[in-house]
Amino acid sequence: MAVSSLPCKTVLAGAIAKSLLEEVTTDLQKLERVPRLHGYLANKDPAARMYADWSAKTCRENGFEFTLHEVEREDLEDEIRHANIDDSVDGMIVYYPVFDTRRDQTLQWTVSMYKDVEGLSPQLISNMYQNIRFLDPPLNTRKSILPCTPLATIKILEYLHIYSSFLDYGKRLFGRRITVINRSEVVGRPLAALLANDGAEVYSVDITGVQHFSRGSGLKKQKHEVTDMEGWTLEQCLPVSDVVISGVPNEGYKVPTHLIKEGAVCINFSSEKNFNVDVKERASIYVPAIGKVTIVILLRNLLRLAQNRPQTNGAH
Amino acid sequence: MAVSSLPCKTVLAGAIAKSLLEEVTTDLQKLERVPRLHGYLANKDPAARMYADWSAKTCRENGFEFTLHEVEREDLEDEIRHANIDDSVDGMIVYYPVFDTRRDQTLQWTVSMYKDVEGLSPQLISNMYQNIRFLDPPLNTRKSILPCTPLATIKILEYLHIYSSFLDYGKRLFGRRITVINRSEVVGRPLAALLANDGAEVYSVDITGVQHFSRGSGLKKQKHEVTDMEGWTLEQCLPVSDVVISGVPNEGYKVPTHLIKEGAVCINFSSEKNFNVDVKERASIYVPAIGKVTIVILLRNLLRLAQNRPQTNGAH
Repeated sequence: MAVSSLPCKTVLAGAIAKSLLEEVTTDLQKLERVPRLHGYLANKDPAARMYADWSAKTCRENGFEFTLHEVEREDLEDEIRHANIDDSVDGMIVYYPVFDTRRDQTLQWTVSMYKDVEGLSPQLISNMYQNIRFLDPPLNTRKSILPCTPLATIKILEYLHIYSSFLDYGKRLFGRRITVINRSEVVGRPLAALLANDGAEVYSVDITGVQHFSRGSGLKKQKHEVTDMEGWTLEQCLPVSDVVISGVPNEGYKVPTHLIKEGAVCINFSSEKNFNVDVKERASIYVPAIGKVTIVILLRNLLRLAQNRPQTNGAH
Repeated sequence: MAVSSLPCKTVLAGAIAKSLLEEVTTDLQKLERVPRLHGYLANKDPAARMYADWSAKTCRENGFEFTLHEVEREDLEDEIRHANIDDSVDGMIVYYPVFDTRRDQTLQWTVSMYKDVEGLSPQLISNMYQNIRFLDPPLNTRKSILPCTPLATIKILEYLHIYSSFLDYGKRLFGRRITVINRSEVVGRPLAALLANDGAEVYSVDITGVQHFSRGSGLKKQKHEVTDMEGWTLEQCLPVSDVVISGVPNEGYKVPTHLIKEGAVCINFSSEKNFNVDVKERASIYVPAIGKVTIVILLRNLLRLAQNRPQTNGAH
């Protein structure tokens, strides 16, 4: 008997990024002013330099202004404070690590929440966890900025119709079970929170164990709650999950393919390949990397920051 | 604490029918000739009369020709044979019951498969079960006609994005688990077969028990296979099913809501209400009736029959 080809489709970030970018450039044309992003590079890290070059290129190719500021790390805090009150600056991105200590977090918190393109300001993070989506309730005209990588993952799930467009905004993941492997403060935990706030049952997994993020039966709660799943491991999570999202920054780590539910959607956001090649024998859709989507989200956040500002008549 | 509204959305057949009808009327304009449907009424059943009137109205409103033939039941077989060879007739529909015995099946089999708008001819049924989608393999230009109610259900699942447009045609239900309650020869069994052929794991349920319809792990089989699920009842099927489709023609029958998985999609194709009102406390999407979609499928099948005919220069 002829073996038919595997049903699994590999969906590349490039295709998803393209459709998102079209939205961004359409909205950009409605602005009176070209949004300007300041990048701050205060280290010799080649990866940071590469990210800086990449953001410069992406900004310029898509009609945004970008200026790279190479500064001494002791001067960076003052530079950020200056940009916070400089009307010509719409957004800022700092290429970390700078000190590679807790002091980097202080730097991050120095960036004004109204110019924080990465969505990592304390108020923005707090809004995200509390499922508060606007900066100006109850008017709700200025959107709270979400962190880039978690938001990129969400946009991928929307693109793949895992979000149901038939349900109300904010409830479109109702009925979906999602495992997120990685519970870092920067990506895994915010991602689990965002997915649960949108209605999913989320299993958040790291080496310390499994936590369940959920708005409860019938989404009766306004925001997610977290409970520890004593004794649970991937063995319990994966066979019931419609979506598996992994971001373990470890070359050796692999999601155990045999535990994945047949027909699941598998997304890797690690720089390493967290899924074995044989994932295509289990999954229906496999997204091997998401970086190209994340960079578009950076532009999208910059656009939001510019949209959130009171409209001026182009004084600068 | 304020109770937020239920996440469940009721999706009405009218909205789905409208989008399908647009497709049909667009395709209709590409034909050289207006397709003609013959309806045969040989009883005094008011429901059959109503269906006849309804099909007449729908045909005429949408640019198809319709002629109702009221005949003595003993003359019907000859009438059908005559229409089989009449070039001016593209499709036929008989309003059953005629004799209300096995003889009605003989009547159905008298209708040429090239003019059978209901998709019930033995060859068409056989194609359907065997997952053969064209009448002229390997050329594959003339589509095999599918029975109206099962196809209407499939079009509803496509509309709701339960079919994934990212997967290959014929595998788009990969990873979905679907319970179908009703295993009649006219609707429930063909529907279970079609869904499994498209990649779903299907639990087909009736009073005699549960059968599993599936193309196997990784859809390695070209068409579905059926196995009896000894000891299974709805109690095993419903909690694991993403979609629940019910068509029990019994006023008293209700799908037990508490067994339905949270966030499932629930579709009723019975003329009775098979779901309790509280289904909206469990489901993400509820489709209470499908009749309006079925009638559009009747037109769509008529269009396919006309498209399948060798193009003539409008001799009639």
